[in-house]
Amino acid sequence: MSAILKSRVRDPRFLSKLCKAEDMIPVFKTGDYLGMSGFTGVGGPKAVPIALQEHVEKNNLQGQLRFNLFVGASCPDPIEGKWAELDMIESRSPHQVGKRISGAINRGHMKFFDKHLSMWPQDLTYGYYTLKKAKPTIDVAIVEATAITEDGGIVPGASVGATPELVMMAEKVIIEVNTKLPNFEGLHDIMIPEHPPYRKPLFVENVSQPNGLPYLPIDFDKVVGVVESDYSELVGPNTPADDVSKAIAAHLVEFLEHEVKMGRMPENLHPLQSGIGNIANAVVEGLADASFKNLTVWTEVLQDSFLDFFDSGNLDFATATSIRLSPDGFERFFKNWDEYSKKLMLRSQQVSNSPEIIRRLGVIAMNTPVEVDIYAHANSTNVMGSRMLNGLGGSADFLRNAKLSVMHTPSSRPSKVDPHGLSCIIPFATHVDQTEHDLDVVVTEQGLADLRGLSPRERARVMIDKTAHPVYKPILTDYLDRAESLALKTGSLHEPHILKDAFKMHINLQEKGTMRLESWD
Amino acid sequence: MSAILKSRVRDPRFLSKLCKAEDMIPVFKTGDYLGMSGFTGVGGPKAVPIALQEHVEKNNLQGQLRFNLFVGASCPDPIEGKWAELDMIESRSPHQVGKRISGAINRGHMKFFDKHLSMWPQDLTYGYYTLKKAKPTIDVAIVEATAITEDGGIVPGASVGATPELVMMAEKVIIEVNTKLPNFEGLHDIMIPEHPPYRKPLFVENVSQPNGLPYLPIDFDKVVGVVESDYSELVGPNTPADDVSKAIAAHLVEFLEHEVKMGRMPENLHPLQSGIGNIANAVVEGLADASFKNLTVWTEVLQDSFLDFFDSGNLDFATATSIRLSPDGFERFFKNWDEYSKKLMLRSQQVSNSPEIIRRLGVIAMNTPVEVDIYAHANSTNVMGSRMLNGLGGSADFLRNAKLSVMHTPSSRPSKVDPHGLSCIIPFATHVDQTEHDLDVVVTEQGLADLRGLSPRERARVMIDKTAHPVYKPILTDYLDRAESLALKTGSLHEPHILKDAFKMHINLQEKGTMRLESWD
Repeated sequence: MSAILKSRVRDPRFLSKLCKAEDMIPVFKTGDYLGMSGFTGVGGPKAVPIALQEHVEKNNLQGQLRFNLFVGASCPDPIEGKWAELDMIESRSPHQVGKRISGAINRGHMKFFDKHLSMWPQDLTYGYYTLKKAKPTIDVAIVEATAITEDGGIVPGASVGATPELVMMAEKVIIEVNTKLPNFEGLHDIMIPEHPPYRKPLFVENVSQPNGLPYLPIDFDKVVGVVESDYSELVGPNTPADDVSKAIAAHLVEFLEHEVKMGRMPENLHPLQSGIGNIANAVVEGLADASFKNLTVWTEVLQDSFLDFFDSGNLDFATATSIRLSPDGFERFFKNWDEYSKKLMLRSQQVSNSPEIIRRLGVIAMNTPVEVDIYAHANSTNVMGSRMLNGLGGSADFLRNAKLSVMHTPSSRPSKVDPHGLSCIIPFATHVDQTEHDLDVVVTEQGLADLRGLSPRERARVMIDKTAHPVYKPILTDYLDRAESLALKTGSLHEPHILKDAFKMHINLQEKGTMRLESWD
Repeated sequence: MSAILKSRVRDPRFLSKLCKAEDMIPVFKTGDYLGMSGFTGVGGPKAVPIALQEHVEKNNLQGQLRFNLFVGASCPDPIEGKWAELDMIESRSPHQVGKRISGAINRGHMKFFDKHLSMWPQDLTYGYYTLKKAKPTIDVAIVEATAITEDGGIVPGASVGATPELVMMAEKVIIEVNTKLPNFEGLHDIMIPEHPPYRKPLFVENVSQPNGLPYLPIDFDKVVGVVESDYSELVGPNTPADDVSKAIAAHLVEFLEHEVKMGRMPENLHPLQSGIGNIANAVVEGLADASFKNLTVWTEVLQDSFLDFFDSGNLDFATATSIRLSPDGFERFFKNWDEYSKKLMLRSQQVSNSPEIIRRLGVIAMNTPVEVDIYAHANSTNVMGSRMLNGLGGSADFLRNAKLSVMHTPSSRPSKVDPHGLSCIIPFATHVDQTEHDLDVVVTEQGLADLRGLSPRERARVMIDKTAHPVYKPILTDYLDRAESLALKTGSLHEPHILKDAFKMHINLQEKGTMRLESWD
């Protein structure tokens, strides 16, 4: 037993369960419902899942050891991607990231469903995801800890996610104590809401107010093994901002400055939520460089750009359920732990994504879609309506409840044959995750469409005028003109569509490699 | 001044502003932003709007006196329908009911936008709907009162809706004291949330807990006139249950009994939300007759069926923002006022439709869509994707946040040429208001589809099997088989669609009067 392990596990009962990752393999049976800690690829177990995949690979057990895998959001690709490759996943929920796992879903080898990340842990505890089981439980939960307290409480690592609910539902729990990572103690605030009719209000009135415990209580009798892990986080590099994302960020900062000037936002704005990816990074960088002071963040996941945001001195406090940094970012974070950690709180995803708190705080929500249609319905999940990317995540938790709901996207993306082969502004979204009733603002590098209070036809003109790529403006205008002219005849001028043409740009892409239609006829 | 008026207006300052409805006409200018109290056709002003429409009709001012009309939900058709006919509405939000007003919207004569009813009053006070105005206010609000308290507080009638926010935003207020209706004092609980960052939790932990004031405080300096009104409510008859809606209700009651048996619901269920229309009535009747005891209701609007529900002894308490009864229903309600009123509370629509409270209480939400697709996206608003019915209402407030989210619909409806010409279960919703991430259960007279925890392809099979009309089962199965077979080739088997065929059933209806496709080829 290493000295560091001994210092991290302060409840000696847990040391009596110490074992190696390989020792845990017999605990797992094919068909099991497995839970893992982790969110956006960080804070999850590594040693036991990797031991399991090595066991499958070594013994040619592909397809013979398959699990129903539940994790708050995504696992790192070296785990769930590898598991998918080894056909170890029967079903997966509610989120995933990586070509290997989404590939398995899209080839029909794996069942997957996505759900609002605030709702998913709750529905799990209601027994809604274990309806097919004789016993409505998670068979095994594997949880990463960076320490165990004197009272036997688990101190998670870089995320909280749905770990509280997964542990609550689990029959057996395996704890991986990660001694490679620092002890994250003091960073977490873990709350498990009671079930109705006993549920209480979430008493959070500002981003730094705690409403839970600094650790996750656990029923020791469930613990079947404690494993020491010396893995770093298995995340990839950060996605840097580019010219398009910087142009988007500039439009957005200008708009927010205008809102402050008009008195619709306070000078320090409202707590910010920002998604993942290069546009989100650019927006955070833009805000860090703007004139706003004393900003706060209420979000789901923090990326590298937040470190600069903290360093700018303009960010007072940030709360999230996960801090997903690049290897360089984590190094920087750990080096300046004392500075960053006092301005940061990691909460359960039921809390970080809570409609109750998002609405109360008046969050400014900003997310990237696959595509947005002219009436402002957005597709966050399924390319061409059918092919799953990552899942819904918390986008709809935030966009439905924020005081200001923003979607930011490039106006176009390249296809194989056309540098602007895909328009991100289209007549009819091929999958709708966010409705026209949810978005206030859509912004591309072309400009910003302020949709508040507009009727659908007004909205469509503004969307095309402000956000579409110049290549697609005449094509979309032509669709709308024709749809209005048809709707005049049929008495359906509220939100005019031509159903036979609604997906014509997408079909043109399938057939000719570009959405650049030559004609609507 | 009538004795009854004098007894109702207990703050004498208000009597000094007494005038006739006609005297108020000069207050209104074309282009004004008008607010009215009222929700689902009840609790709104009648005398002043009717005086205005008579003024327009008598003086041939059609199209010359046009307003931007804001009301929490719908006005009665004799008012907003007549206004639409007289071209008195420039724009309207967020809800409307009646062929005359929806006709004007669908002919493009009137701008309309719908929004979640919980969010709308909030966005109104943020100034989001008055962006085009030099001064971000409602020019005039007309508010029905059934009494005015000693402190000058307004006691509303049969609804609260968005009246608090409309009054807050108004420059001038006209009060109609309705002396034909009883004094509704004691029935209301009126709360106006503070703006972020000062907003507090909504301290409501059960259906009967108040969190506001029994009246609406008002700034007397804004009051430009007090008018006595002797109109009854202008609502039409109730929509009775029929065989189809009774069959739907029976499936649903059986399902709820099963959930109780499995321990996923307590014996007295959770607070019920029920929409409007004959299915909602049948469901409420079904629940009143079932074995559940001590039920409670947390809903948006109460219909006639709730009187029987109260009388059954199984309903302990109901809260809503409106009590919309038929003329007979109101008579019965007023006759037994003492009995009903102690089990009833009317709240602001921000509270009745609050995601925070709906989620906390674990509400069981039940609503009727236009159509639901095989993957469980529902259209609540736009027929054939384009033609507005009534607006979104609170359906999404409830379905997104409920513990159990149910959509109930007949499996088919008649068209002109085919008794089953419209399938309510279709391949792809022509408008999406509720996403696949929001619905737990879909039920038709054919059966009940329990969709919890299912992947999209599993969900689609269950939807077709349990809910589709027998005429459409083979047609929908054929679509799904073909879509899966195509998706296998393109690697998009998560939620398979054939974009060129997605709306083919709808196009067949447009062209041949029925969705009964002869072939997908």
